[in-house]
Amino acid sequence: MERITPRTLSGFMELLPAKQAKMEKMMAVLRETYGLFGFSALDTPVIEDAKILLAKGGGETEKQIYRFQKGDSDLALRFDLTVPLAKYVALHYNELAFPFRRYQIGKVYRGERAQRGRFREFYQADIDIIGDGKLDILNEAEIPAIIYRVFRGFGLNRFQIRVNNRKILNGFYAMLDLSEKSGDIMRTVDKLDKIGAEKVAKILIDDCGLTASDADEILKFIAIRGTNAEVLTALEGYAGRNELFDLGLAELKAVTANLSAFGVPEENFAVDLTIARGLDYYTGTVYETTLLDHPEIGSVCSGGRYDNLAGYYTDKALPGVGISIGLTRLFYVLDEQGLLNDALPCAPCDALVLPMTENIAAAISLAEALRNGGVRVQLYGEQKKFKQKMSYADKIGVPYAVLLGEDEIAEGVCSVKDMTTGQQVKLPASEAADYILKSLQNNCGPLILEK
Amino acid sequence: MERITPRTLSGFMELLPAKQAKMEKMMAVLRETYGLFGFSALDTPVIEDAKILLAKGGGETEKQIYRFQKGDSDLALRFDLTVPLAKYVALHYNELAFPFRRYQIGKVYRGERAQRGRFREFYQADIDIIGDGKLDILNEAEIPAIIYRVFRGFGLNRFQIRVNNRKILNGFYAMLDLSEKSGDIMRTVDKLDKIGAEKVAKILIDDCGLTASDADEILKFIAIRGTNAEVLTALEGYAGRNELFDLGLAELKAVTANLSAFGVPEENFAVDLTIARGLDYYTGTVYETTLLDHPEIGSVCSGGRYDNLAGYYTDKALPGVGISIGLTRLFYVLDEQGLLNDALPCAPCDALVLPMTENIAAAISLAEALRNGGVRVQLYGEQKKFKQKMSYADKIGVPYAVLLGEDEIAEGVCSVKDMTTGQQVKLPASEAADYILKSLQNNCGPLILEK
Repeated sequence: MERITPRTLSGFMELLPAKQAKMEKMMAVLRETYGLFGFSALDTPVIEDAKILLAKGGGETEKQIYRFQKGDSDLALRFDLTVPLAKYVALHYNELAFPFRRYQIGKVYRGERAQRGRFREFYQADIDIIGDGKLDILNEAEIPAIIYRVFRGFGLNRFQIRVNNRKILNGFYAMLDLSEKSGDIMRTVDKLDKIGAEKVAKILIDDCGLTASDADEILKFIAIRGTNAEVLTALEGYAGRNELFDLGLAELKAVTANLSAFGVPEENFAVDLTIARGLDYYTGTVYETTLLDHPEIGSVCSGGRYDNLAGYYTDKALPGVGISIGLTRLFYVLDEQGLLNDALPCAPCDALVLPMTENIAAAISLAEALRNGGVRVQLYGEQKKFKQKMSYADKIGVPYAVLLGEDEIAEGVCSVKDMTTGQQVKLPASEAADYILKSLQNNCGPLILEK
Repeated sequence: MERITPRTLSGFMELLPAKQAKMEKMMAVLRETYGLFGFSALDTPVIEDAKILLAKGGGETEKQIYRFQKGDSDLALRFDLTVPLAKYVALHYNELAFPFRRYQIGKVYRGERAQRGRFREFYQADIDIIGDGKLDILNEAEIPAIIYRVFRGFGLNRFQIRVNNRKILNGFYAMLDLSEKSGDIMRTVDKLDKIGAEKVAKILIDDCGLTASDADEILKFIAIRGTNAEVLTALEGYAGRNELFDLGLAELKAVTANLSAFGVPEENFAVDLTIARGLDYYTGTVYETTLLDHPEIGSVCSGGRYDNLAGYYTDKALPGVGISIGLTRLFYVLDEQGLLNDALPCAPCDALVLPMTENIAAAISLAEALRNGGVRVQLYGEQKKFKQKMSYADKIGVPYAVLLGEDEIAEGVCSVKDMTTGQQVKLPASEAADYILKSLQNNCGPLILEK
């Protein structure tokens, strides 16, 4: 037989079992947390009609897209979960109840230039709340509570949700008569963290054509820092000069007003006037989330309020608010930084049942009894020497080996061996499941371990 | 703005939220059950190098495949989960522990002619156990226990796991000196249920070139029916004439010997000599699973033992056993047959919190308290009349509305309204979560409701 060397395409994540177990736990946290806030799971196709997916057209995205013909059809792989959501809501408008809350955790595709840490196939984990015509500000206020629970669910404490409002920025630029340049200005200001204030000023003056005084005003504005209360007080100083600004300030106040009721501690939340988000799409509150000890990673959960989800497909006004986690990249970075908890049990099973007798009926019954008690059990059936069996148990990292020989059967017990400590106890099958599950619960640390 | 009419490609399943909730429950049952038997989750890319995916080449599959160029790369979408598994095991051979048990629930792609109930994008839910050189028969014996738990987990009782062994069939054909024709014969016999014994005999004689006496022998053989014990006894009558047959019979006995220890009732299991599975790939035990009240659906979970998983990629001998559930098709058929339990709560949340006061801090705290108690809560923030709020609650099918007005706040309670009965009780927030969760538990029926 002619052989082909197996390989996985570069830019495509493919994990070994123990690491995949951690990824599965992250996904379980996301599903559970999104569910806790009343979001419905959605699952749209990976392939869509290219014409529909590219309705917006143009830009960098189009070059990166996986697009191909099949028969007469012009097809493309989704490059995000927002466009398919827009299609879904426009298509099923009459069958949905609004506000419509959905989450989707799915793979998306972008044929980017291959480089370390860049993925061509990656998971996004999105939530969106879509209103029919209107959507109350309370939904925007709730988003930080969801982000907070997600990251706490991952085991993180040292993160910060940063919030701003595009109406404040646009209103402020209008005060300076710079509305037409607001897009360019925001894209420039967005680079502040990366290139510093001086270079931002230079670009604003040289490339955007601002006066030195306007550039100065802008830098002074985005330099406003302090507690949430202090920043809001400073913003009050600009109030009454522009309607949009005042509206944005009122929204920002509404978003920050109930943080403690939402259970979000002050240290995990900051009003940050430098947050703009690049996309013109956003019209109100915008969110970014950074890991305090790893600012170099950038935002790990971003999003915002938009006024027009599906204008390419319907004349219905569909405002919404949403956030997205680039899950594959986040997982990759956490792993790279050594933040994934190595002590977390990631074996394929909790217990490996090792039959030590010719007749295996008793071992089978034991395995089934443990499963009925909720223990994930692998029954080891290979004809190997005891040493090889224990070496397999070590290799898969199983927390417990459960031995069943003639003696145990005669006594009506099984021998439960803790693979970490080497300690072994004899227990009736009926007690073994509880014993194992309780011990595992005590060992169950967070998914991410901060240092 | 120019508008494009939104649509979803034909042959691609896209469910509304309540139905998706049922699909999610099916997936949760699969993940949990596969996990209970010690299978690791795996997640391989949807896109692979076309040359690797099509190493086996030829046949119907190649015509159906989604294959395309991106830059210089010749790419293809996976058409099953077995070829990617073969690649994975060959590629990561040195990093895996054998037996290697993995499950994968993932989308696969086949550009079949579009027709009702046929999907171009569909989920497969596979498990496989791969041995390094050898794999004990106990693994084959365990498979019916896994299938049994999966279908019982779905809520089904009226199903049957049908088992045969290819060595018995091949040994039997060898007895008749028909080894060279065994492939053709099996493919013909496989049609027995569809076309009947008479037509099978005619094809065996006319097309396969068998004598009438051989055709008669074969039909007599596959007509062996009865309890598992009766069928095995009848097979003993053929023993001692062919080594392969005897080996197959010993394997079949091993697979049936411990069914009760594995917790599989006799009525859910049958030795069935008509089961052959079309693929040459299988070399030992083969499995099919049928719904007893819906034989027209055909097998909903099939698989078997194979000797050579990854011969196209490695010279390592990798025998295995696996089964696959065509999840999208199964879901579609269950829905079509009206078997999905309509009474199962499929709302996006368990409780809809309705603030009835200007200041919403109390409602936010209530929602958070319920979430901390494990209740999936949507906080309704839209400025609507009470009637519209209740109509939204009806539309999303939420089991409980939780009302919080000035009176409730003053009394330190909330009003929990059962949306089905209309009954309303006042409870402190601390008791409301338990009350809701307990009531929901009582309402939680099976996913599939047999009639």
